[in-house]
Amino acid sequence: MTVTRDDVQAAARRIEGRVRRTPVLQLSPTLAFKLELVQHVGSFKPRGMFNRMLSAKERGTLTGQGVVTASGGNAGLAVAYAARELGVPGRIFVPESAPPAKIARLRTLDADVVQVGSEYAEAYAAAVTASDESGALFVHAYDQPEVVAGQGTLGLELLEQADGFDTVLVAVGGGGLIAGIATAIGDRARVVGVEPELAPTMARTLEADDLIDVQVGGIAADSLGARRFGAIAFEAVKTYGVPSVLVGEDAIVAARNEFWREYRLAVEHGAAVTLAALRSGAYQPASDERVVVVVCGANTDPSTLA
Amino acid sequence: MTVTRDDVQAAARRIEGRVRRTPVLQLSPTLAFKLELVQHVGSFKPRGMFNRMLSAKERGTLTGQGVVTASGGNAGLAVAYAARELGVPGRIFVPESAPPAKIARLRTLDADVVQVGSEYAEAYAAAVTASDESGALFVHAYDQPEVVAGQGTLGLELLEQADGFDTVLVAVGGGGLIAGIATAIGDRARVVGVEPELAPTMARTLEADDLIDVQVGGIAADSLGARRFGAIAFEAVKTYGVPSVLVGEDAIVAARNEFWREYRLAVEHGAAVTLAALRSGAYQPASDERVVVVVCGANTDPSTLA
Repeated sequence: MTVTRDDVQAAARRIEGRVRRTPVLQLSPTLAFKLELVQHVGSFKPRGMFNRMLSAKERGTLTGQGVVTASGGNAGLAVAYAARELGVPGRIFVPESAPPAKIARLRTLDADVVQVGSEYAEAYAAAVTASDESGALFVHAYDQPEVVAGQGTLGLELLEQADGFDTVLVAVGGGGLIAGIATAIGDRARVVGVEPELAPTMARTLEADDLIDVQVGGIAADSLGARRFGAIAFEAVKTYGVPSVLVGEDAIVAARNEFWREYRLAVEHGAAVTLAALRSGAYQPASDERVVVVVCGANTDPSTLA
Repeated sequence: MTVTRDDVQAAARRIEGRVRRTPVLQLSPTLAFKLELVQHVGSFKPRGMFNRMLSAKERGTLTGQGVVTASGGNAGLAVAYAARELGVPGRIFVPESAPPAKIARLRTLDADVVQVGSEYAEAYAAAVTASDESGALFVHAYDQPEVVAGQGTLGLELLEQADGFDTVLVAVGGGGLIAGIATAIGDRARVVGVEPELAPTMARTLEADDLIDVQVGGIAADSLGARRFGAIAFEAVKTYGVPSVLVGEDAIVAARNEFWREYRLAVEHGAAVTLAALRSGAYQPASDERVVVVVCGANTDPSTLA
């Protein structure tokens, strides 16, 4: 289950025209933002979901049964969007506790939303079963090679766009994005993961040197609250020596407020962890270190902005 | 009072490092957004205000008395910001009816806010008097050559950034931005102004072929509600043959909602008129016409987004 740079380059060719090439805002010689929040459905996720589905289409395994996934968050939105764009049914399993607003948004994307069980694990199991029984393509939120390769296209874009950089800061949940970016970038720059202290999935996994269940919570849990790190991501972050730095809840809130106040960017809490790492000192670049902050999602309630 | 392309190029050199080079989001071969909403203080205005102040500094007319302006909106924010950055006092005259939130925001930028009179014209007169009496530099919201030249730097950037385009759509209030962009772009592309039907300052001025007072109102009046078109802008739009197209209130609201729903951009109503022109058919490009939509401001209440 290793993903290679060739896989990421193939993904970039495959999804071209399906996803937005998101721009870079260069703020100073040493700081830039990769504005992935203007991606379709408000996060980087469609990159991976399109690559998964289009790869399956090439193999003939994307049928009229369409696709299934389990996610009430950004992955679910991206699967629903990609399914609609590709003209196949999208079935999204979510826990019964999923917020009505999220379900409504999935339905505006023509998804068939199925509420199952009291927690995510049950929705996940139901999605896998539905895939097995129907032949619909199962799309994992982060732990499939084609998903990781697709997310990595963000890293390839960055190499083309940015005027040279030393370090890229990436928010980490299940690890799909950071695994893809680390694979795309290799030794061309330093890749640093950032997680909430209250959702330290990658950090605990690296400490244990094993794929363990991690307790997750906090303000960014809706996008970064994967309880188990991806197996592909685990291998990738070890291969490329990617560290995880942790940020507190207050730093996340302050960074999200700064995004709005100073840049008029309405970002979700999960996307604010990268700037939080810089501002809180959790990641301290050298004075001349050129840092790119990936701003990866904006599925947030704008009425909560200061 | 003619502004030339050389003036705009001089402005670009003068303000470099003071303003953000805002990115372009290419959505399709025929549509791109210039994301000026991520500019300092949330609009394009600092370009012109810095150019006005730095030009005065070169001439020795920016003194310890600082600057004065009359504006409770984007121009006031930009003058306050630029004054603070340049280390001079900024005095901002606003009507007594100015919303407390706007006054508070000006004060966070260290501005001295003076509330005078029941309407903008009285605040304006007080600002001019204060400048005359104190020697502080008067900065007009849109009708000074250096202000227009500074706003035009957005157009120069666009020529460098965009992969070729045929048309640029620009929101019009007092005309500072469109005059600058038209001057910067010349005959390299078509420049089209867009105004609300309820604030048709440029359209009525062109019809009258005279600088007349125009009745303004509607949902975008806080940023596009200049009652009198700029004399410099009047000359520029005639020189470059720039038309004004008008959009209705519903189209403005729909476009602002689309900016949030589809691109996660929280824009002010005034900045939504350009997309509104495309979506409503008020401006109808040819099928292969490459259009850039300038997204010029985000000083808006995010809680009003759908």
